[in-house]
Amino acid sequence: MCAGARSKGAACVGGATRSKRVPRAVREQQMLDAGVRAFARSGYQNASMDDIAELAGVSKPLVYLYLNSKDELFTACLRREAAALVTAIRAAVERGAPADRQLWSGLSGFFAHTAAHPDGWTLLHVQARTQGRSFAREVVAMRAEIVEFVTQLIGAAAREQARGAARARTLAGPEVSGLAHALVGAAESLADWTADPRAGGPSAKEATATLMNFAWAGLGNLLRGQGWSPERVG
Amino acid sequence: MCAGARSKGAACVGGATRSKRVPRAVREQQMLDAGVRAFARSGYQNASMDDIAELAGVSKPLVYLYLNSKDELFTACLRREAAALVTAIRAAVERGAPADRQLWSGLSGFFAHTAAHPDGWTLLHVQARTQGRSFAREVVAMRAEIVEFVTQLIGAAAREQARGAARARTLAGPEVSGLAHALVGAAESLADWTADPRAGGPSAKEATATLMNFAWAGLGNLLRGQGWSPERVG
Repeated sequence: MCAGARSKGAACVGGATRSKRVPRAVREQQMLDAGVRAFARSGYQNASMDDIAELAGVSKPLVYLYLNSKDELFTACLRREAAALVTAIRAAVERGAPADRQLWSGLSGFFAHTAAHPDGWTLLHVQARTQGRSFAREVVAMRAEIVEFVTQLIGAAAREQARGAARARTLAGPEVSGLAHALVGAAESLADWTADPRAGGPSAKEATATLMNFAWAGLGNLLRGQGWSPERVG
Repeated sequence: MCAGARSKGAACVGGATRSKRVPRAVREQQMLDAGVRAFARSGYQNASMDDIAELAGVSKPLVYLYLNSKDELFTACLRREAAALVTAIRAAVERGAPADRQLWSGLSGFFAHTAAHPDGWTLLHVQARTQGRSFAREVVAMRAEIVEFVTQLIGAAAREQARGAARARTLAGPEVSGLAHALVGAAESLADWTADPRAGGPSAKEATATLMNFAWAGLGNLLRGQGWSPERVG
């Protein structure tokens, strides 16, 4: 594989490889790009380091030199994609806006990011989950961060509502947490549909509108103390 | 492993094994029970046929005689758990009741089943997804059946509502489908939380109440034509 690498500016010297023109940080990102694509499409077991090196346009020894092992490459891919997703959501949220507007902007950011990075989403949501405990932990931590963020948002909205209206019922902590889990699960499900090109799912914008309608018209009622109970119907 | 099998009533004869007292159908279910538990807890790669045979109290040759291979055992486990889940949901739904009552009863059935069968749920929702295309297909088909069932339910509710109130807006097909995806994803997320004994999540009953509140107070508004739009807020 050294021939291909050399043609792109990396030199093979006795198994070790050194980039001449491309800085290491840039090369690493190219390797991670290739890794995300290969792992998302073939899974951890089936994706080969040969394929990943070829996709990245570098030699296999260079991939090992920079990222040590398939295991560490996979972890680096996961971390980068998880951080990018969390950053995209946080950047999209309109701080200081009313709670529903904050939620809407956050969901817009989430669906825009997952639609633009379907391989990254597949890596996080499908491939990472069963590839051993350490990989699962990375994703569980990222998901917990998102759930916590949504929990804070719903909690703040509930307190805001409670100050404004005497009728409003304060949602209990576990209930807020449950709603956040439900909302995150709903978003994941729609993101899977959006990210799968064969599924004929909605665009990022349509997914945002659907979930926002579903979630907020529901949350909005809950926050005003208008829940649903089986006793209401016959 | 024949010693253990013989003590439970199976006889080893030159590699082939025959059950003397326990009917084949019962033995197979015991093997599937053991498979579901082992695959859910260790994953497909790490679960060994030795462990599964021991868990089932039979010899390893008997497992191979009945189920051919680890691959076929895994598939049989998946099929049984998928069928059981779909059956539990269908059986729980109160046919002919108002739409919200139908949804509530279906969700009750879903959460009661996943809470009672956490290994089966883990197998379907976590382990099966990345274990090769054929396994993923089984689960994708089951999930599609559930989404379709929920889509029908929401569609029927929308038509019911449209007949009753002049103001009601008829939800478009893709929108109904999107809502069904959102609802199923929310239910999966809460089921993961409920099924994980270390997560301190809600009981099946609490999960049902949370999701029903979230979903119906939201869907109820949508069906009355009261959606959310970003234009409404500042």
